[in-house]
Amino acid sequence: MKPFQAPLDDILFCMDVAGASDLPDWDAELAGEIAGHFAAFAEGEIAPLDEPGDIQGCTLENGRVRMPDGFVDFYKSYAEAGWPSLTAPEEFGGQGLSPMVLAYVSEIFSGANQSLQMVTGLVPGAIRTLLRFGTDDQKARLLPPLVSGDWLATMCLTEPGAGSDLARIRTKAVEGPDGWRISGEKIFISGGDQDMSAGIFHLVLARTSDNGLKGLSLFACTMDQAGDSIRVVRIEEKMGLHASPTCQMVFDDAPGELIGGEGQGLAAMFTMMNHARADVALQGVAHSARAHDVARAYAEERVQGRKTDGSPARLIDHADVQRMLDRIDMLAMGGRMIAHLAFVTMEKGDNRDFVDLLTPVAKVFCTEAGMEAATLGMQVLGGYGYLREYRLEQTYRDVRIAAIYEGANAIHERVLATRLLKSGSAAAFKAFLDAEGAGEMRVLWEQAESRLLAMQDASALAHDFMVLTQLALLQALWGRMLARADAHPDPARIRRLAQTALRDGPIFARARADRLAAMA
Amino acid sequence: MKPFQAPLDDILFCMDVAGASDLPDWDAELAGEIAGHFAAFAEGEIAPLDEPGDIQGCTLENGRVRMPDGFVDFYKSYAEAGWPSLTAPEEFGGQGLSPMVLAYVSEIFSGANQSLQMVTGLVPGAIRTLLRFGTDDQKARLLPPLVSGDWLATMCLTEPGAGSDLARIRTKAVEGPDGWRISGEKIFISGGDQDMSAGIFHLVLARTSDNGLKGLSLFACTMDQAGDSIRVVRIEEKMGLHASPTCQMVFDDAPGELIGGEGQGLAAMFTMMNHARADVALQGVAHSARAHDVARAYAEERVQGRKTDGSPARLIDHADVQRMLDRIDMLAMGGRMIAHLAFVTMEKGDNRDFVDLLTPVAKVFCTEAGMEAATLGMQVLGGYGYLREYRLEQTYRDVRIAAIYEGANAIHERVLATRLLKSGSAAAFKAFLDAEGAGEMRVLWEQAESRLLAMQDASALAHDFMVLTQLALLQALWGRMLARADAHPDPARIRRLAQTALRDGPIFARARADRLAAMA
Repeated sequence: MKPFQAPLDDILFCMDVAGASDLPDWDAELAGEIAGHFAAFAEGEIAPLDEPGDIQGCTLENGRVRMPDGFVDFYKSYAEAGWPSLTAPEEFGGQGLSPMVLAYVSEIFSGANQSLQMVTGLVPGAIRTLLRFGTDDQKARLLPPLVSGDWLATMCLTEPGAGSDLARIRTKAVEGPDGWRISGEKIFISGGDQDMSAGIFHLVLARTSDNGLKGLSLFACTMDQAGDSIRVVRIEEKMGLHASPTCQMVFDDAPGELIGGEGQGLAAMFTMMNHARADVALQGVAHSARAHDVARAYAEERVQGRKTDGSPARLIDHADVQRMLDRIDMLAMGGRMIAHLAFVTMEKGDNRDFVDLLTPVAKVFCTEAGMEAATLGMQVLGGYGYLREYRLEQTYRDVRIAAIYEGANAIHERVLATRLLKSGSAAAFKAFLDAEGAGEMRVLWEQAESRLLAMQDASALAHDFMVLTQLALLQALWGRMLARADAHPDPARIRRLAQTALRDGPIFARARADRLAAMA
Repeated sequence: MKPFQAPLDDILFCMDVAGASDLPDWDAELAGEIAGHFAAFAEGEIAPLDEPGDIQGCTLENGRVRMPDGFVDFYKSYAEAGWPSLTAPEEFGGQGLSPMVLAYVSEIFSGANQSLQMVTGLVPGAIRTLLRFGTDDQKARLLPPLVSGDWLATMCLTEPGAGSDLARIRTKAVEGPDGWRISGEKIFISGGDQDMSAGIFHLVLARTSDNGLKGLSLFACTMDQAGDSIRVVRIEEKMGLHASPTCQMVFDDAPGELIGGEGQGLAAMFTMMNHARADVALQGVAHSARAHDVARAYAEERVQGRKTDGSPARLIDHADVQRMLDRIDMLAMGGRMIAHLAFVTMEKGDNRDFVDLLTPVAKVFCTEAGMEAATLGMQVLGGYGYLREYRLEQTYRDVRIAAIYEGANAIHERVLATRLLKSGSAAAFKAFLDAEGAGEMRVLWEQAESRLLAMQDASALAHDFMVLTQLALLQALWGRMLARADAHPDPARIRRLAQTALRDGPIFARARADRLAAMA
């Protein structure tokens, strides 16, 4: 099996092409150094826990979750090395780096070990939520233990029967003389308990009035204050991510403190969720890159068949294998470009409408790319791909959840086809396509936009419209990559991928546009 | 979780539309009765072993494979009920039924429990191989125990480093005074050992001379004659199919008898393999149908969101969910139609060229359909789809192998784009499209055919050409289904699916044709 190797060159290239250097406080050299350090840490410490963690899994013992062997020691060295504090403000003990560094740290972490990334990865989002919605007192008390790594964070949204339908949330918060008390049941809580960090910081969405979505507020609950009033009653048996405990939790009159105002819960939670969604997109990218790395290495070694001149061939000499490898490579690079463009645009802070469109597009494209890359990678390995020892089967199982959690992809597709089309996002996207010279795509997209806007309910067309949007966006981004190919250590590869993508993009975009016309 | 239910109405409809009633010895009523009996047996006896078998798996103990609990008892009742003997000739103890009944028995079996189907499913192919290549003495000795269920069968082809490349096979057969002796190593042998049947009948491809593919011959080895000279040294740890032991086997001077002539091994093995390939296509169909059944049942129950009129909705009321469910349904019905057309055409026996084309097209389409259906079904269930208890995750893991074994799909695509295009198969396919009135598809296909024929090596275009071929074939078959919709108990469903498929087929076919033009 091929050990994990972080795709550093590709990450730094995409970051550059996405325009990171336009950001005022961007230090490309420092970013490269941090990426290199984290890559070494991930290759040496994080990736080796991935397979044993998958095999051993988490267990629930006497109401506490026990992580697989080695995870507790790993977390100690992770926190001591300061990795949780990268982007936190210096006044709370952080290193004050640009949030952009999370784009590559998260990708590398997920490629090395998605389960572990999920348990540790909610801290930056929790920090951001506290910075935005917490009081000064809350920041002073709650940020330092998150920054130091003493606490890990969770996001407690989902309830039985209320997956994507937050209006159905029934967990209640009641204010009494000694503060707020939370009671209810939450499911699918990643890292709801674990034995790595000294404490756990739960951000819990709960109902403070019956007023639908407006009756939801956000609360912080910490395990050490809660005692027995927060209990994990079950961890789920899943297809993958066995080293990420997915917890069913009961809050039973648990003490909590309000973060933000009453009724502001959804807004506050979305700060956390948008962060998690960007991470999920990067999980898809990470698995695509990993699938490419494993499959390419195998195809370069494995002797199979003969070349047209009769000499013995390796797998990679076969045109269909090269086609699959390039497709995986395009999925990884294309997805990373979309994700990085979203990060850079968010940091620039001057085009919120475009960010609103890029976020769901990145989430959907990158997660589906991850699944397609995993299945193609497995196909390149043939029967060996189906075996545990070649490790792609874990990629195949782990990546599958990404299209489901943080909003099932169909939800994001519906948001794009309905709400966003009626917002400033459509104009922002067309302005982007104009600026990038993606003329034919702009025409196809605008025609489809008109069709959807003319419909009472465009949700039946949402999937095809999402695909068309992805193709239009990627046409622009592959154009950029082609123009900047010489900035990559392997310019010939970038050119080959870009030329294929740019050739096929309009063909498949026309097909989607035709289908949208037939359906409208 | 939704218990397994055999899609009997759909199976009998497809069989009818595929033209089974044109076969001289076809008795639709009897076929329906047998299908009903087997469906009840599968629902009551086979399906309940699927989940515990997946969890417990097979073990290798003291050189013998132990099947999961319940499998041994199941096999006893399966054999006693006469299921192994359905299509075997009456003179050898069989029931002499049309091989067509295997089309629905195999599908139902695979839908209920693919692992178990794989261990029992090679018997009909072994019987067919013996009938075609065995001597009268071999038939008299070797057929009755296969027909009675005393023996199960295996197919021993693959060797380390020689997956799809049979010219590299190194297992040797040497003739001595007491007959042939086989020595070598085989991998990926399904059911290479188990404790269900009294004996095991191995069909082993071995080298009788160094003359490449022409030096391969087929041998029968039986465990009881072989003693310690056939050993299972390992069973693989796989992503799925845990109740199907995938064995690494050593033949160490094992006694065997030649089936067919020396050097005829490949021809004889292909009789067995073509049978296995048809089964693999049906595995894809079975999982597609199962994914649809589970996802539809869930979507009909689960309350989520609101209808456009504001009343509470179920999942199935959402346009995007209906789109996914219909897509899964189309994958199942379309795949089954291709597979059944292949079966009927094979039984008619007057159009070998068309069968040669239908076999790889069915294998590739149905196995990819199964994967897409499984992933879409899981998506409909959301987070629950990722959990073990809703059972789709096993479908997702089990079906994945079908695109890999019995010839990786890329191999079948290459055969279609190269060898078959230069054979009578192309003319046979065009004649079929003409007869079915699929005019536009025929034009697109013929243009692509010319492009491929003009190339030195068309293998880089093989995948897109396969997709185009599938679309052309399905256009004809959906046309048939639409015309015969009233023969189905739910004609409105058939019409809705057919209209969508017929609307989209040409759009996606044109895109593939455009891409082939751009690549050629």
